[in-house]
Amino acid sequence: MKHTISVLVRNQFGVLARIAGLFSGRGFNIDSLCVAETQDPAFSRMTIVSHGDDAVLEQINKQLNKLIDVVKVTDFREVEHVTRELALIKVNTTAQTRAEIVQIVNIFRAKVIDIAPRTMTVEVTGIEEKISAMIEMFKPFGIREIARTGRVAMARK
Amino acid sequence: MKHTISVLVRNQFGVLARIAGLFSGRGFNIDSLCVAETQDPAFSRMTIVSHGDDAVLEQINKQLNKLIDVVKVTDFREVEHVTRELALIKVNTTAQTRAEIVQIVNIFRAKVIDIAPRTMTVEVTGIEEKISAMIEMFKPFGIREIARTGRVAMARK
Repeated sequence: MKHTISVLVRNQFGVLARIAGLFSGRGFNIDSLCVAETQDPAFSRMTIVSHGDDAVLEQINKQLNKLIDVVKVTDFREVEHVTRELALIKVNTTAQTRAEIVQIVNIFRAKVIDIAPRTMTVEVTGIEEKISAMIEMFKPFGIREIARTGRVAMARK
Repeated sequence: MKHTISVLVRNQFGVLARIAGLFSGRGFNIDSLCVAETQDPAFSRMTIVSHGDDAVLEQINKQLNKLIDVVKVTDFREVEHVTRELALIKVNTTAQTRAEIVQIVNIFRAKVIDIAPRTMTVEVTGIEEKISAMIEMFKPFGIREIARTGRVAMARK
């Protein structure tokens, strides 16, 4: 099962390495992770998506709470929340396929953010399933490169 | 100076902890990092934004290239590229301020993705400066929470 947790941390040196180490030390794989500053540059928020045993996740949550630089851990299993992800996708184009690709872009409410003679770079945001569906639609044209941010999440209340 | 590097890695256990450790071991702070699967689930792409001395970054690039799970390192200093970031922002609202907040959302081509009696959650994408400008506009209303993905980047060619 996929788990999403959000960790508010003090921007101390090496905090990411310590948290990533805590997951790998417990044999827990990280599917995606993103971390960036909050409105207060002294703090960063990390969103981690991982899969594995519930009991192990429980242990990880406890360990996270013990780290001195961790201010708050939110486990989204218990919380109503919204999630989003952003992806940049560079897809092969020709004069013949360009119109069809733009049509797909419009259907997904995505945006063409760069164009070159043989490629187009598209920005798409949404839940992961939407981004994966768009990637599937682009595969027949040939995908050159993908950069996904991984999931960010926020409690509804 | 801010540096952006992109690292294509094999999805091996603990690779994120090793890479984060390499940065912190060299005294290099990570401003933002995001990592997620590519179109091939055997590989993930990491985008790392950090600041510090050019010579140290050079060393880090060399160290990264020596890691067995690292397939390719792209240093965007030398490459024309596009960047994007996504942020979720939960801002305080009242019946009186709601219209003004929606106006700001529209100006930034952002989206209201959730609404509660006293808050609104907004999704915004763009370059960091745009997201920071939006955060500044929201500060007077009171920001409850921010979750930013950190930068993803892609070479233009």
